[in-house]
Amino acid sequence: MDAIEALKGRRSVRVYEDKPVPKDVIEEIIDTARLAPTANNIQPWEFIVVTDPAARRKIADLTDWGKFIAQSGACVAVYAKAVKHYLEDGSAAIENILVAAHALGLGTCWVAGYGKDYGEPIREMLGVPEGYKLVGLVSLGYPAERPEAKGKRGVSDVLHWERYRDKSTKEA
Amino acid sequence: MDAIEALKGRRSVRVYEDKPVPKDVIEEIIDTARLAPTANNIQPWEFIVVTDPAARRKIADLTDWGKFIAQSGACVAVYAKAVKHYLEDGSAAIENILVAAHALGLGTCWVAGYGKDYGEPIREMLGVPEGYKLVGLVSLGYPAERPEAKGKRGVSDVLHWERYRDKSTKEA
Repeated sequence: MDAIEALKGRRSVRVYEDKPVPKDVIEEIIDTARLAPTANNIQPWEFIVVTDPAARRKIADLTDWGKFIAQSGACVAVYAKAVKHYLEDGSAAIENILVAAHALGLGTCWVAGYGKDYGEPIREMLGVPEGYKLVGLVSLGYPAERPEAKGKRGVSDVLHWERYRDKSTKEA
Repeated sequence: MDAIEALKGRRSVRVYEDKPVPKDVIEEIIDTARLAPTANNIQPWEFIVVTDPAARRKIADLTDWGKFIAQSGACVAVYAKAVKHYLEDGSAAIENILVAAHALGLGTCWVAGYGKDYGEPIREMLGVPEGYKLVGLVSLGYPAERPEAKGKRGVSDVLHWERYRDKSTKEA
């Protein structure tokens, strides 16, 4: 799939077909994540791919907005060493996962990790060392829905040339 | 360009040709940024595109590791309302900018914004309202270098199946 098309076409998918995701496809996706930009080349991230249904059910139950993780083919738990820019690094890596998955015909949904109380119990459950922070959980599977982009601000609303201008006020 | 190729091929580019980036190319890039995932669809981001050489020089001088912004064709300052997940949202948007730019033949470098003391003076300089936080600065231009990926951890080092395993210890 074309890169621009993939970037624009990615949506949050929360309903999946009951079909596993092949291991080599997951490896290809994580290969794009590890090549995301990272401050000072620290690469603080670890990607734990959970396919086991019982483990996914447990993760889903621990989250607030990630119940669909129980029904997806896989869940990628992204943890990072708590270095200064871990949240930016980890978020860039997750975005690569989402875009790569979409390009390969899969659907994903990013379940937030920052500031969530399930970061620690999931870390312990997955055997991730102490001190690592949950960046986010990504559900991954073959999409059984095709959501439209809804209520998105337009380019002219978010893009400011040279200087910020208040776009909420209509100007002459 | 193919999406997977674009995700894997992006590098941090800090040396640029002395050549402006067309406005419609910048608009296309920001169009991918505004479609990045965003918690609760808040879309807290604003993208201020600075092409003016004097303004870029001023921004470059304020930063620690962004001196090359003075020589790039443009600089995108990404600010966001300080909502809970602004840093993840803003980072996903920046990653889209980097990948889109690479797919369109441009080079970029992400200059960190989080926790940096230049966030406020650049905000004031660009007329961004109080309360917005700098996510990052992105230099943008036609690349005059082709950096290789250096010292990257391999897929098998960062990917863990079902459970974290310490990869630093060689196992049988």
